Amino acid sequence: MGFTPDKRLQNDSILASTQHNIQIRLANDSRYFWLILVPAITHEGTDTAIQEIHDLPASVAANLWALASHFSKALKAETKADKINIAAIGNVVSQLHLHIVARHHTDPLWPAPIWGQGTAIPLSPQERDKRLASVQSWLVTFSGKI
Amino acid sequence: MGFTPDKRLQNDSILASTQHNIQIRLANDSRYFWLILVPAITHEGTDTAIQEIHDLPASVAANLWALASHFSKALKAETKADKINIAAIGNVVSQLHLHIVARHHTDPLWPAPIWGQGTAIPLSPQERDKRLASVQSWLVTFSGKI
Repeated sequence: MGFTPDKRLQNDSILASTQHNIQIRLANDSRYFWLILVPAITHEGTDTAIQEIHDLPASVAANLWALASHFSKALKAETKADKINIAAIGNVVSQLHLHIVARHHTDPLWPAPIWGQGTAIPLSPQERDKRLASVQSWLVTFSGKI
Repeated sequence: MGFTPDKRLQNDSILASTQHNIQIRLANDSRYFWLILVPAITHEGTDTAIQEIHDLPASVAANLWALASHFSKALKAETKADKINIAAIGNVVSQLHLHIVARHHTDPLWPAPIWGQGTAIPLSPQERDKRLASVQSWLVTFSGKI
């Protein structure tokens, strides 16, 4: 028994790393530098995906927030974003996943939220690998603390 | 110098409590049982509002996530929600605020996110007070831990 990422998450994003039981995924969308954190665990002793933040074990929740904050800061610096958007929605893909998205005043949907809007523009292989390298470099300075 | 809540947050929500430097606000919208957590702090030594999760002091961030998880669980139980949506967006109101929203398959915008969509339907005084009492009762069981 164990964790399987939702197929839509697998189709729409690329696994950059797994840290502390959390998958760090890069959304395959050149419109936004957009990460998706997916706790790679299930309800204990089952194959049932966790859907809500409050169902995470405390240690995984703490790691999730620490990673979210670390990536928020790194994304803002790298992209010179005007705002970072962080959200756990899951109305369509119920498996728990946390979006971290760099937003700019000049982006196509500003100031609207991006979820369920518009159509992803897949990353070129070069842009994909550049973003994956950035994410992996940010992990080097991750302290593990909120 | 000190914290002042953004005027739009003040107009659109009601202060239920302040705990650990975090305002717990009830959105004045009968369509959704919707809480807004607002860290009641500024950048140190200034009147400048904090805009990003990663700019919170670690202790306030830890309290924010602990409250978010606690209210997520309580809201789900109280409203029998199908999903809790949690988000820090802030593209319109840049002062940092975290939404916690109970969503149902039958609600008017399901499965779309609610932000920037539709028009709030103000709570009746009875419904407002009932929700405020619920929020205050949930604080009694708040452990302070993530």
